[in-house]
Amino acid sequence: MNLNCTTLAKEELEALRVKLQAEYDKFADMKLDLNMARGKPAPELLDRNTALLTDMDKWCAADGTDCRNYGVLEGLPEMRSFFGDALGIDPERIIIGGNASLTLMYDAMARLMMFGTSKSSAWAKEGKLKFLCPSPGYDRHFAITEEFGFEMITIEMNSDGPDMDTVEKLVASDPAIKGIWCVPLYSNPQGICYSDEVVARLGKMKTAAPDFRIFWDNAYGVHHLYGKTKLADIFAACEAGGNPDRAYYFFSTSKITFPGGGVSMMAASADERAFILKHMGIQTIGHDKLNQLRTLRFLKDAKGLEAQMERLAVELRPKFEIVANTLERELAGSGLATWTAPKGGYFVALDTMDNCAKETLRLAKAAGVTMTGAGATFPGKCDPRDRNIRIAPTYPDCKELQLAMDLFCVCVKLAGVKKLLGEI
Amino acid sequence: MNLNCTTLAKEELEALRVKLQAEYDKFADMKLDLNMARGKPAPELLDRNTALLTDMDKWCAADGTDCRNYGVLEGLPEMRSFFGDALGIDPERIIIGGNASLTLMYDAMARLMMFGTSKSSAWAKEGKLKFLCPSPGYDRHFAITEEFGFEMITIEMNSDGPDMDTVEKLVASDPAIKGIWCVPLYSNPQGICYSDEVVARLGKMKTAAPDFRIFWDNAYGVHHLYGKTKLADIFAACEAGGNPDRAYYFFSTSKITFPGGGVSMMAASADERAFILKHMGIQTIGHDKLNQLRTLRFLKDAKGLEAQMERLAVELRPKFEIVANTLERELAGSGLATWTAPKGGYFVALDTMDNCAKETLRLAKAAGVTMTGAGATFPGKCDPRDRNIRIAPTYPDCKELQLAMDLFCVCVKLAGVKKLLGEI
Repeated sequence: MNLNCTTLAKEELEALRVKLQAEYDKFADMKLDLNMARGKPAPELLDRNTALLTDMDKWCAADGTDCRNYGVLEGLPEMRSFFGDALGIDPERIIIGGNASLTLMYDAMARLMMFGTSKSSAWAKEGKLKFLCPSPGYDRHFAITEEFGFEMITIEMNSDGPDMDTVEKLVASDPAIKGIWCVPLYSNPQGICYSDEVVARLGKMKTAAPDFRIFWDNAYGVHHLYGKTKLADIFAACEAGGNPDRAYYFFSTSKITFPGGGVSMMAASADERAFILKHMGIQTIGHDKLNQLRTLRFLKDAKGLEAQMERLAVELRPKFEIVANTLERELAGSGLATWTAPKGGYFVALDTMDNCAKETLRLAKAAGVTMTGAGATFPGKCDPRDRNIRIAPTYPDCKELQLAMDLFCVCVKLAGVKKLLGEI
Repeated sequence: MNLNCTTLAKEELEALRVKLQAEYDKFADMKLDLNMARGKPAPELLDRNTALLTDMDKWCAADGTDCRNYGVLEGLPEMRSFFGDALGIDPERIIIGGNASLTLMYDAMARLMMFGTSKSSAWAKEGKLKFLCPSPGYDRHFAITEEFGFEMITIEMNSDGPDMDTVEKLVASDPAIKGIWCVPLYSNPQGICYSDEVVARLGKMKTAAPDFRIFWDNAYGVHHLYGKTKLADIFAACEAGGNPDRAYYFFSTSKITFPGGGVSMMAASADERAFILKHMGIQTIGHDKLNQLRTLRFLKDAKGLEAQMERLAVELRPKFEIVANTLERELAGSGLATWTAPKGGYFVALDTMDNCAKETLRLAKAAGVTMTGAGATFPGKCDPRDRNIRIAPTYPDCKELQLAMDLFCVCVKLAGVKKLLGEI
């Protein structure tokens, strides 16, 4: 257990500061150049998937479709079945996209703005709209709602998902609130998993907007590190609540096979799916079926996917443990930070004392370690308490990661002591 | 030379009709099931490209980028250089897309509607807009402008491109006219090539809309069948005319490698490109770089592309010759049809007598040959004279194609005779 810095006298803090500064300077002298800014898999993780690139001497789908040629807008039947099995979704709900679920989300939002839903018209004609943004969250989600001019309303995260009391109150009274961003399993960046109760409440809550949409980005739906965490069925929850069209479900293999060459999917109610396909059919004749085939040949089926995820977990667990152990060793009991201990996903979130995140990351960067920018996890890139930091341990190798975490902890402490000394 | 049917007496026409009906019935008895509806390459054409699927044991770009991972929004530098060399475009203008240039076009139009251009704001806020549609043209182009609510103005095609006198007159006076669809080389479906003069006039014409856009879909830019046809540089023409931002250039390898797994590109002025990338960067982290690499490994460079196109031409020329020879043999001098003789591209266009296209295609379908629907080549799928038919000879094998063309000519004649007899 570390010294609780918040109880130290001024002289003690100043002595500590000198010690920390010396430690920091030693790191600075190492001229590090490490980047932990984004959730990229390491090259070694990708090396495991190279069979994807060479093992492809057939090009026909199970029904005989020549995947080299045009067509099959909604994606290969076997690809839809694969995702359906893996995620517990009826394949009839599923549409396969290109290499990025982010594009499916952007395009879904663009369609809502320009054409509305199967039962309502263009959102863009309704004046100023709002979107709920559970935060800390994923910066690229918030960038989409910012792009389309939404007022973004920050919702606090509890340990079992967004603060549903606030969500329910807001959506019940304000018809301008059109939707909510959700990363329901191992949320980015905290690694929080939505409880069954939260999922049920999202499905049944009364919304003033009749065409309220849940953007259900289950990006880490199979990224278990320490055993499976179950996630309740959002479609069942919406149907039980009498809101069958409410959820748009997104997923991809980007962080399963290759981020640059994955296969994405979205799922929706029958009515919404038909509406989406009608517009998507003007936008494309069909997505890359060869990559669907290639991905299927590699992952095979839900069981093959499970085996693949366990292989990835073997690589990722040591990295998450370096993060957890270093934070514990350096910061537990210090009063300077709290952090999450995710059981899966891609990130760990740390909160410094208020107003210390920017200074912490400035110090880290000055010593050669780039991390996700302070504020990035909040709408408009503005963290009202300037305290949340996203740690992305997947890209560096273990040695680099340990070094980066050691430095990072010194930075958290140095910024914290400065704050306690009244300098921040 | 055939009998000129338009000069026949009623009794002669009736005798001819009996003879044609007997010929038609013989085809009908064959229970054919041939589809010439879309411009799909034949499986044998795709077989030539299978090295694309297996020859891929490296995954790093020339600058060391790991193409398996995230990033490189604008596409690999070597892919941009490849397209630049092949098409005579500065690579700095180029953005690489996903597997379909159609998607780049749809997304470009969606951006114009929602965000405008680098120098103007959202088109959707300007009220009812119009778009010029040289016709006959490509149905999927017209579907995009229909999707976004444009009034589509049909422009007649001359032998060297759209009727520029009309185009210039319209765009000069009406600020609601925001752009024009162009397939400048071997146009779909007529195979018309734009002359240097037409390109120059498109670049310099005065438009009442300050943000007028040319959607320059050079889909068949390298699909020469009988020697190269040169196309003037649309960017140079726009710059010479003082309209540097006017052209959006589109191209893809879909009909060069695999329609289902090609690489698309768009090009624009520096200002427009920066504006497009700003929005595209919210929509995706990057398109499929592995497929860019795969495509490059296969096509190598501009010279490799030329060799590939000659290999394809060897397969396609006999098919185009079957179409040309059969039309000549069966219809020349009959007064029942005129048609084009493209030197490249993917289609042949035929005009029946007025009001005979639907009946011709109905007859063909009833006897087992499906062709592109009548009217499909005009905005709103409505051919005002009901006479234009798109012949797509690339998919069937030569034996099937000959059979289909023989039947088709009987249908053209039968419909024509019916018309001359006053039944249509």
